[in-house]
Amino acid sequence: MYAVILAGGGGTRLWPLSRRAKPKPFLPLLGEESLFQLTLRRIEPLVPAEDVFVVADERHRDVVADQAPQLGDRHLLGEPFARNTAAAVALAALTVSRVDDDVMVVLPADHYITDPAGLRDCLTVAAEAARDGSLVVLGITPTGPETGYGYVTGADVDESPSKVRRVAQFVEKPERERARELLSSPPGAWWNAGIFVWRRDAVLDGLERHAPGLVSTLRRGLEAGEPLAAIYERLPEVSIDRALLEPASLEDRVRVVPADVGWSDLGSWNALQAALAQRSQSADGVVAVGRAEDIGSSGILVHSSAGRLVVTVGLSDTIVVDTPDVVLVCAADQAQEVRTIVDRLAQAKEIDHL
Amino acid sequence: MYAVILAGGGGTRLWPLSRRAKPKPFLPLLGEESLFQLTLRRIEPLVPAEDVFVVADERHRDVVADQAPQLGDRHLLGEPFARNTAAAVALAALTVSRVDDDVMVVLPADHYITDPAGLRDCLTVAAEAARDGSLVVLGITPTGPETGYGYVTGADVDESPSKVRRVAQFVEKPERERARELLSSPPGAWWNAGIFVWRRDAVLDGLERHAPGLVSTLRRGLEAGEPLAAIYERLPEVSIDRALLEPASLEDRVRVVPADVGWSDLGSWNALQAALAQRSQSADGVVAVGRAEDIGSSGILVHSSAGRLVVTVGLSDTIVVDTPDVVLVCAADQAQEVRTIVDRLAQAKEIDHL
Repeated sequence: MYAVILAGGGGTRLWPLSRRAKPKPFLPLLGEESLFQLTLRRIEPLVPAEDVFVVADERHRDVVADQAPQLGDRHLLGEPFARNTAAAVALAALTVSRVDDDVMVVLPADHYITDPAGLRDCLTVAAEAARDGSLVVLGITPTGPETGYGYVTGADVDESPSKVRRVAQFVEKPERERARELLSSPPGAWWNAGIFVWRRDAVLDGLERHAPGLVSTLRRGLEAGEPLAAIYERLPEVSIDRALLEPASLEDRVRVVPADVGWSDLGSWNALQAALAQRSQSADGVVAVGRAEDIGSSGILVHSSAGRLVVTVGLSDTIVVDTPDVVLVCAADQAQEVRTIVDRLAQAKEIDHL
Repeated sequence: MYAVILAGGGGTRLWPLSRRAKPKPFLPLLGEESLFQLTLRRIEPLVPAEDVFVVADERHRDVVADQAPQLGDRHLLGEPFARNTAAAVALAALTVSRVDDDVMVVLPADHYITDPAGLRDCLTVAAEAARDGSLVVLGITPTGPETGYGYVTGADVDESPSKVRRVAQFVEKPERERARELLSSPPGAWWNAGIFVWRRDAVLDGLERHAPGLVSTLRRGLEAGEPLAAIYERLPEVSIDRALLEPASLEDRVRVVPADVGWSDLGSWNALQAALAQRSQSADGVVAVGRAEDIGSSGILVHSSAGRLVVTVGLSDTIVVDTPDVVLVCAADQAQEVRTIVDRLAQAKEIDHL
């Protein structure tokens, strides 16, 4: 078994902490280690460092080397720029030299999981299920009808909860009502968290059948020694879900392993607030990272990473983020607007702050 | 006429902007000039620089010299430490060499007035009223039954609104109900804003009668060439209101000149927010000083004085203050708690931030 960690996420919604120079995977959002480092540590008992490969933006090579000195330089597959997950997975499948029936585990570098042992158990079950050439997805137990995630639905009604299931379909970011339906109809549905387990030949064969242009362009360019930036320019920008898993599910090639492992994508300040509140078991709902003083607030997250003292008084449901050059103060229920601010700064060419 | 500007206010409630090293009077809270500089400019047409004296903490001598180069060094009466306003006024009355019937105008250095010409008119009326030895107080037209101010009440019912009135009594920081009574009972009441006009001999005679220990201690120490710090140690810490005006009012020696001049003490972040909102005529109630971006907030004040970008999203009635070492985010209706934070930091010996 070998692991391919996808560390190309931008984490725009965690601005101003997440920046182009050091985006979300490389930030110690929950403590001393970055999400990338936590991801490595999580799979370490299952996949030793010599079998771990990281796909990340070439610009972050130094950050990866700093944070994971145990990985050799060859273990970083640097992308010239992000081209979504199908390109990243294909790059790893083509360039990491392994035998065909080796099992590849694909893991995002910027998620959080409270039960690492549970995750490893699920990955072991998934690796077994992948032996026959199936494409296996870990299915996160949903906590509600979220509209921001992709769902996979089971094909069979009469299976036991822990069993590997056949996948009927993928549903990308459904409306609220549809999400409710998915959750309530047997045999249930799970969130697709981008954690995949498959044989190297299964993913390459599948990509060649369902996304032939992508694989052939990449393969020929690499064989011709063309610069990766020139090859990447010609690749379609598509997710591995859409390029491979959706069409393969119609051919009954996809399986799901239910995974109740305390997963969070930490996809917004709200999600980080929830994860930190759970960890700290804060009674008054005041969660702080860094130097902070509070009087009488509730439901707040204070994140101070620039050494300054952040003082909060009488706030409710508010997020305060202090960085060396930007301070963000945001109503918790408006956290999705952070993206709007980032867009506005990009348009105004305020790139120092991005 | 000569002016004594009291610039010893600490402005703790405007922390973290107001600090021990550079407190409220010396901050450009409303724009480019500090409140101290605005005070000088306000009285300039009435009192030229050679007749202006400043009582301030000796530690702020350089700040005063920087901000008011037109004042000679002798025009700063440096206090070794603050000993309330009776000591400051007595120091000025004893050390500024003027003839006895010269009229002294006492002005706080940290208030804001939207109608400077109106103020000068009131001071001219008050100077006339002070000729006979009366102690004259400017009475600010109250905007509501505030409990944080001292009130003066008129003694006569049948006077015209603009007339100089005899003062019946001083009421220091009344309860809300009592404040309502004061405002509704004829002949009315005004806020005592600490703006006083009186002959030099009148204030000295009054202090000698009502606070004899204070004047004699100060006079003898000064005559003996004792260090001011040693003298100040022995002075009572009392306001000029309590030491002089309250007892003198019982002897019918105090007059009030009503002054409807757009006064604010800028005594808290709320007061600054109100003053800035009025100046900017902000429709959405978003008032910003410095670099700020907002999406969808209302009733907020953003004060950024450290060059950082402050981004606010979806906030209501909130104050955000960014300084080089401290960020404050405070519910507008909890702004009085800022003092609690300052006390807490002082107890924790976090003096860097004070």
